[in-house]
Amino acid sequence: MKRIFATFLIASALSVGAQQALFEAPAKVESPVINADGTATFNLYAPGAGNVALIGDVLRPFGMHQAEMARDTAGYYTFTTPAALPAELYTYNFAIDGVRAIDPANAFIIRDVSSLFNVFIAPGEASARYKMADVPHGTVAKRWYATPGAPVTQRRMSIYTPPGYETSGKSYPVLYLLHGMGGDENAWLELGRVAQILDNMIASGEIEPMIVVLPNGNMALEAAPGESSLGFAQPTFYLPYTMDGTFEAAFPGIVEFVEANYRAIPDKAHRAIAGLSMGGFHSMQISKEYPDLFDYVGLFSAAVNRGNGDSEIYRDVDAKIDRQFATPPAVYWIAIGADDFLYKENVDYRARLDAAAHPYTYYESTGGHEWRNWRSYLTRFLPLLFK
Amino acid sequence: MKRIFATFLIASALSVGAQQALFEAPAKVESPVINADGTATFNLYAPGAGNVALIGDVLRPFGMHQAEMARDTAGYYTFTTPAALPAELYTYNFAIDGVRAIDPANAFIIRDVSSLFNVFIAPGEASARYKMADVPHGTVAKRWYATPGAPVTQRRMSIYTPPGYETSGKSYPVLYLLHGMGGDENAWLELGRVAQILDNMIASGEIEPMIVVLPNGNMALEAAPGESSLGFAQPTFYLPYTMDGTFEAAFPGIVEFVEANYRAIPDKAHRAIAGLSMGGFHSMQISKEYPDLFDYVGLFSAAVNRGNGDSEIYRDVDAKIDRQFATPPAVYWIAIGADDFLYKENVDYRARLDAAAHPYTYYESTGGHEWRNWRSYLTRFLPLLFK
Repeated sequence: MKRIFATFLIASALSVGAQQALFEAPAKVESPVINADGTATFNLYAPGAGNVALIGDVLRPFGMHQAEMARDTAGYYTFTTPAALPAELYTYNFAIDGVRAIDPANAFIIRDVSSLFNVFIAPGEASARYKMADVPHGTVAKRWYATPGAPVTQRRMSIYTPPGYETSGKSYPVLYLLHGMGGDENAWLELGRVAQILDNMIASGEIEPMIVVLPNGNMALEAAPGESSLGFAQPTFYLPYTMDGTFEAAFPGIVEFVEANYRAIPDKAHRAIAGLSMGGFHSMQISKEYPDLFDYVGLFSAAVNRGNGDSEIYRDVDAKIDRQFATPPAVYWIAIGADDFLYKENVDYRARLDAAAHPYTYYESTGGHEWRNWRSYLTRFLPLLFK
Repeated sequence: MKRIFATFLIASALSVGAQQALFEAPAKVESPVINADGTATFNLYAPGAGNVALIGDVLRPFGMHQAEMARDTAGYYTFTTPAALPAELYTYNFAIDGVRAIDPANAFIIRDVSSLFNVFIAPGEASARYKMADVPHGTVAKRWYATPGAPVTQRRMSIYTPPGYETSGKSYPVLYLLHGMGGDENAWLELGRVAQILDNMIASGEIEPMIVVLPNGNMALEAAPGESSLGFAQPTFYLPYTMDGTFEAAFPGIVEFVEANYRAIPDKAHRAIAGLSMGGFHSMQISKEYPDLFDYVGLFSAAVNRGNGDSEIYRDVDAKIDRQFATPPAVYWIAIGADDFLYKENVDYRARLDAAAHPYTYYESTGGHEWRNWRSYLTRFLPLLFK
């Protein structure tokens, strides 16, 4: 049987159409290759191309934004990193004669807003938690729910339930984890590797088994781009109802939905909220607006001072934070990278907390406003929860 | 606030790195564009490219495999289909100087084995069921389970539960829907639009609300490529333990798992099994091997005569089919395209059923071994179920 299919494979290798799915062109090269010395080599066969460059965060450890790939006479292009790649999940593209393109030898991509990037993991301790490992796995579901007050009637969340949830009969604490501007209910799963991080850290005993709820913070949207009744409309970065108080006002409805539909422990000591960038802003606002809801708050590179509109939610913020800290959260965790464009905003925000003697934990990393930091922050924040 | 972010947007438009996710380069063109006359126009800005072609099943209605895109002096490439596109979900790529590339103006892609294609829907009656619509939505979960007898210990299925499942208290019939060679537990969801088809056809009253179970039929694998402990290993088409009887032998364990974990009606009249290509072969083998399990059987472009190895499952097939048809299935449905490379195999298989006077329903379409047929077959098979 393999022989029979193989004949068709060769006959159809270059046609897309009549015999879909069964057949594919064999890749001419392997790419990327992690070499024995820890460097990575990127390869492309492109005899018709004039110029091919590598772009992406894979070049950041070397202070580069773009790397020309060397061509041989047969039309093979190659680039090897100048030194070993630090352990991390990396994204990259090729620029083929100036057009951003994916690596045809790498089937794995992640969408970030409207751009598609190839992805791979350079192995090592710092990326070990981002890999799917042979450990017990939680369930990831895409679940629709009604959001009272939203401009659309049904909206979608992603929800991670820990290994054994379905049969344990136990109730679990819940982390509500919020995306940034341009993100959606898939962002933390795909770019943030949430399911892998939770599976791995639960398996190692570093963290408590917990439910993780990933709402969509764009109140004008039903769900992630391509997965709503908007169809395959190209994603846009700016949307209405993102930082105008609508999401924060509706948030207790999400908590109610989760606690009515999942075995969640329904008290403050077993609820956490955290988010990145806009999601950090949301976490700050929601946790201060409903001071009895969350005992654990995480602000990751938070756009902490950027609400717009005249929402009641955004009035008297300092007084509401004073009210929140009258019974201080068990953990109030602020993290940002030294190169983040929101760094100064976070310095100012911490000064306000300091002036009021409100306790918090601060973690400063290198780097900027980027997923490598947000994944890392999550692995540092999770072990603090529900202790 | 929008103004502040917009400044960073411009500053960072071409860098990938320090301010990830918040910023993106504005698209220079829109692509694809569905025109008022039903034609589709594909656009690419590529001043550095020498040659750009369009490839993909979007050209099939016009008998074309590849279309050169016209370049203007500024470096914009364009191609408009020679006539209106029939309503369908289409996939395509650009070939930029000979390298298969995605359309940078279209963020939506589907992986088929190891190839990534852009996707869009040409609207109309024939594609209406494939669109996400503003109707009640079921939940899609990725669930891990133990497969006794598998060469790996835990494996993943996708499972669709119909709108209202979580709160209705009702029990539901179950369709087990199997992928083809090179596919996985995501294939019917992504290329097959199962969640959209089920949501839409349940909403219209055409079909019964049902659970749809999408197992991974590659017994050597835990889960889809990139979502198992193999990491981001490039997908391969040929795998061991696919058509050697292992999957069929373990299948009752999947039914047991589903019926123990979901509100499934646990009798033959409320179980269906169907699949495409290799999955059609599996459906034939499993339904005949366990004649008391399934009252509804669908063979879509089935590789019906291709078992390998000396499995007990593949012995005495005709006699086992006679045993199965001693109490004929309520529906035994065979569908194939006139141009399918498995057409003759299906003619022969039907001749065997005819010779034994076993009742079945036959549907013959145009076209070949392709997802446009499998989506269509699913919409024709579903209304026959559980009546």
